[in-house]
Amino acid sequence: MIPEATIARLPIYHRVLSELVESGVSVVSSEQLAAAAGVTSAKLRRDLSSLGSYGTRGVGYEVDYLSYQVALELGISRDWPLVVIGLGNLGRALVHYGPRGFRVAAVFDADPAKIGQSVQDGLEVLGLDQLPEVVRGLTSAIGVIATPASAAQEVCDLLVNSGVRSILNFAPALLAVPTDVEVRKVDLASELQILAFHEQQRRETA
Amino acid sequence: MIPEATIARLPIYHRVLSELVESGVSVVSSEQLAAAAGVTSAKLRRDLSSLGSYGTRGVGYEVDYLSYQVALELGISRDWPLVVIGLGNLGRALVHYGPRGFRVAAVFDADPAKIGQSVQDGLEVLGLDQLPEVVRGLTSAIGVIATPASAAQEVCDLLVNSGVRSILNFAPALLAVPTDVEVRKVDLASELQILAFHEQQRRETA
Repeated sequence: MIPEATIARLPIYHRVLSELVESGVSVVSSEQLAAAAGVTSAKLRRDLSSLGSYGTRGVGYEVDYLSYQVALELGISRDWPLVVIGLGNLGRALVHYGPRGFRVAAVFDADPAKIGQSVQDGLEVLGLDQLPEVVRGLTSAIGVIATPASAAQEVCDLLVNSGVRSILNFAPALLAVPTDVEVRKVDLASELQILAFHEQQRRETA
Repeated sequence: MIPEATIARLPIYHRVLSELVESGVSVVSSEQLAAAAGVTSAKLRRDLSSLGSYGTRGVGYEVDYLSYQVALELGISRDWPLVVIGLGNLGRALVHYGPRGFRVAAVFDADPAKIGQSVQDGLEVLGLDQLPEVVRGLTSAIGVIATPASAAQEVCDLLVNSGVRSILNFAPALLAVPTDVEVRKVDLASELQILAFHEQQRRETA
């Protein structure tokens, strides 16, 4: 996925970025970063784009975040524990498709028929009543809501009351949370609907 | 997922919205829509939010799009064909988790070991060389890129050259496309990384 030659340069970028972080630099241009790392800026931009970092045109890269991304890619940072609620197809996909730097630490479902099922690597589906205790045993767990929309707010409240402060929401529902909780939304169905809607308009005007 | 009572009201909303579309009305407030449908605006907002439509505060609902969403929910609109490229865990999840209103019409992979595999319901993994012909046989296919980042642009070009104008991109890569092609991006790993980054900052300042 990421070229070997790029991976070989990541530790250099990591060192340069760590120095910038320590110096309190918050934004760096690709030219500055390339010069400090001893590569051409074209190569640097290509390397970082393979990490999914593109910077902001005319501004540059956010040093803190880029440093974090490089560390994550290098496996320097720890794996963050994900707590997945809802073992539908999406929940199952998450268990199997653990993005780098994250691991599914626990899976919960409200359906008694699913509780106790083994999903992978000794992971067993737990009931929601066990969620507060499991979350308290983890450091900085990230909650992943993969339930139907109708259950999302209730599950969200349970996560928040258990101490979770970061939530990824796949349910097509707006969640109300305290100001110190961050929710990010991934809404596959909506994205597809928007594409289909424009396809339909395109066809009608064709 | 959506309450039965809400589903029972959808045809009413659909009729009212169709009339508004025909009258050329582009935006409607929840109060206007509720009055035309003979329900309270609180009930209307709750019903539409269960479809994932929240409108814009102080503005209202976009009539065209809301009408489309309601039709989709009612199953009035046709199923849109998805063409999925990349049969990793994510691709497999998409085949199984087909959002309402969409169906996976074809699955492609570059890996010879996967080509010919049966994935579901008589769907068989095809080679990329078959993509142009398959896409030409479909009306308004939506391309779904679930490949590694390194392959995404090449696959995107193939889709575009085959006539696809709507692409959902799961690969962590920016895609270059002609102006008449719409790309929407779902980047699970980035969303998680942003959450983790803020968690880390929160912990460091705690």
